[in-house]
Amino acid sequence: MPIVTLQVTREGSKPGNDSVTADEKAQLIAGVSQLLFDVLNKPLEATFVVIEEVDIENWGWGGLPVELYRKQQRLKPS
Amino acid sequence: MPIVTLQVTREGSKPGNDSVTADEKAQLIAGVSQLLFDVLNKPLEATFVVIEEVDIENWGWGGLPVELYRKQQRLKPS
Amino acid sequence: MPIVTLQVTREGSKPGNDSVTADEKAQLIAGVSQLLFDVLNKPLEATFVVIEEVDIENWGWGGLPVELYRKQQRLKPS
Amino acid sequence: MPIVTLQVTREGSKPGNDSVTADEKAQLIAGVSQLLFDVLNKPLEATFVVIEEVDIENWGWGGLPVELYRKQQRLKPS
Amino acid sequence: MPIVTLQVTREGSKPGNDSVTADEKAQLIAGVSQLLFDVLNKPLEATFVVIEEVDIENWGWGGLPVELYRKQQRLKPS
Amino acid sequence: MPIVTLQVTREGSKPGNDSVTADEKAQLIAGVSQLLFDVLNKPLEATFVVIEEVDIENWGWGGLPVELYRKQQRLKPS
Repeated sequence: MPIVTLQVTREGSKPGNDSVTADEKAQLIAGVSQLLFDVLNKPLEATFVVIEEVDIENWGWGGLPVELYRKQQRLKPS
Repeated sequence: MPIVTLQVTREGSKPGNDSVTADEKAQLIAGVSQLLFDVLNKPLEATFVVIEEVDIENWGWGGLPVELYRKQQRLKPS
Repeated sequence: MPIVTLQVTREGSKPGNDSVTADEKAQLIAGVSQLLFDVLNKPLEATFVVIEEVDIENWGWGGLPVELYRKQQRLKPS
Repeated sequence: MPIVTLQVTREGSKPGNDSVTADEKAQLIAGVSQLLFDVLNKPLEATFVVIEEVDIENWGWGGLPVELYRKQQRLKPS
Repeated sequence: MPIVTLQVTREGSKPGNDSVTADEKAQLIAGVSQLLFDVLNKPLEATFVVIEEVDIENWGWGGLPVELYRKQQRLKPS
Repeated sequence: MPIVTLQVTREGSKPGNDSVTADEKAQLIAGVSQLLFDVLNKPLEATFVVIEEVDIENWGWGGLPVELYRKQQRLKPS
């Protein structure tokens, strides 16, 4: 009876998309349910998956809203 | 000080509704707070309830988006 | 496909108990699953319930660890 | 690697606002990340913060939707 | 910056084990992080995974503690 | 009525400690409750805080159990 919660920012993975697509969601659901079957032998019908899309301004990393943090990281000398 | 989180798909429980109604939410809040009082003696004012409505395409069951899974279950010979 | 998460402090509801008993857990599971059936028409077999017991020193209320907060509340003139 | 989840009702903190502002979110992210550094020595870049805004009718307290509960509290003789 | 939460019952996947092994946990972490890279292009170092093991008596399904529910399902004529 | 969930690995912040101390927990509870008062004007008595300590082998980062990931990071040329 696993429960999988996937929290991601609400944004597209490719130019032109501004959120996770229905097809990508279906791939995530299929992939993680299969993983729980492969590793822990959990039947597919015993696994629930919930995808939570979080507005980008509601996500923080490095003490900053994540968009600002990413910008800062790109400016860092490597 | 219990915290109750109720995650449900965003859909109506009756034809004509497309989401959980305010009245249904009030019933869920009242019912589960009363349950915690009855079973564990938790005072009502010490219980928080959060209802999370999840878009149907963000919920997976049986390795599939849940609408597809339900369709598949209805087609199964019993 | 509801998911219910019940977070409570790990303590007994009666003198002599120091945690939630298996019987109380069964009552919580039965009660909240029934509530979701009664209010939203969710079949029992589509509801998952997870009970999370939280050590008392890990719970805060009123800016204080909850045991301290309760003590403070009892001292307040009413 | 702390994860901080802040759940608040979707409402403004001042007259004229009807939700948490981007600036308030940035202050919450900065403040709680700093706190984890100060108390537990967690580097800022190891802390994720997620702010969840919950519609007011989806939040229960005292066995009631929270707006009703607040109204009731204000009517109480003190 | 995805966060993945995997909630599973605390029990072994094979005879002789009574919980999820460290090796199975490592496989789950690797598999789901890779999935988020493959589907959403999320870099591995931006994904946090948290595995929550839940005592079997704290998990409910079908209105029953899950061990009882499983027993009942096995007795059902198919 | 904010709910704050703080998830951290179960380990000490100083040599000699192998978990978060009661005093550190009290500081976290006080600090984050005060932050919500300062930024969003939430009264202290309306804020719940839950600290979840996660076993180190149950936390993943960079596709690896976090201890392995940290070791790998320390070996990286900078």
